[in-house]
Amino acid sequence: MAVGFRGRKSKGSKAERDLIHLFWSKGFAAMRAAGSGSTQHPSPDILVGDGKHFFAFEVKSSKDKTKYLTKDEITQLDLFANSFGARPFVAIKFDSEKWYFLRLTDLRVTKKNYVVTLNLAKKKGLTFEELIGKYKQRRLS
Amino acid sequence: MAVGFRGRKSKGSKAERDLIHLFWSKGFAAMRAAGSGSTQHPSPDILVGDGKHFFAFEVKSSKDKTKYLTKDEITQLDLFANSFGARPFVAIKFDSEKWYFLRLTDLRVTKKNYVVTLNLAKKKGLTFEELIGKYKQRRLS
Repeated sequence: MAVGFRGRKSKGSKAERDLIHLFWSKGFAAMRAAGSGSTQHPSPDILVGDGKHFFAFEVKSSKDKTKYLTKDEITQLDLFANSFGARPFVAIKFDSEKWYFLRLTDLRVTKKNYVVTLNLAKKKGLTFEELIGKYKQRRLS
Repeated sequence: MAVGFRGRKSKGSKAERDLIHLFWSKGFAAMRAAGSGSTQHPSPDILVGDGKHFFAFEVKSSKDKTKYLTKDEITQLDLFANSFGARPFVAIKFDSEKWYFLRLTDLRVTKKNYVVTLNLAKKKGLTFEELIGKYKQRRLS
């Protein structure tokens, strides 16, 4: 059924490894998912936690200023995150730009796809510091 | 440094897939880790959550009645679990037996390794139902 939904992903992408290093360096534990077809269940690319906050990421990098995601990728990410108890985000790295983290409701929807442009990412996305800071602030309240 | 600590693992083990199915069938989300050498950071074989309870597993199967684990495997599992906010267990499936889940403190220690025998698993390990039931009960209190 969902066997193929991770099929197009680069299994060992540098972006994923970079993001994992970034989270570990800030006191989070981060885990990369097994490659495509590993099970027929949904899986994010990366799962992150620090005992209080849990994030599930679909990770994308792009040389262009527009990146497409399939509806299935987003549906599966949302499904996994809801079951696991993590906040789902699309983590996107455009060349020469910072990481941006987009909530699924902030993605642009077309007939067949979800779309993230660099503009949208800058407008709606959280930076890494905001993602961490945001939830760190909430911890205090 | 820790690059090699997953090296001896069977990447696509049937045991891991079976365990993932089992957890999904009970309302947990379960994720398999990427294979060895994926990053230099620690990683469990499987990470499981249901919004309230988070488990990190080192997964083993055995045709014999004795299974060895390296100290490094256990150290890394513990490190990951503590950082992430999950309870670490060794999940072990001896041929023709149920799954047993052992707390790290219940493993037998030798000079060089940790050891799980079938006897120890039956005596100290939790069954799947106990693992789930235990934490479900705690949820009510």
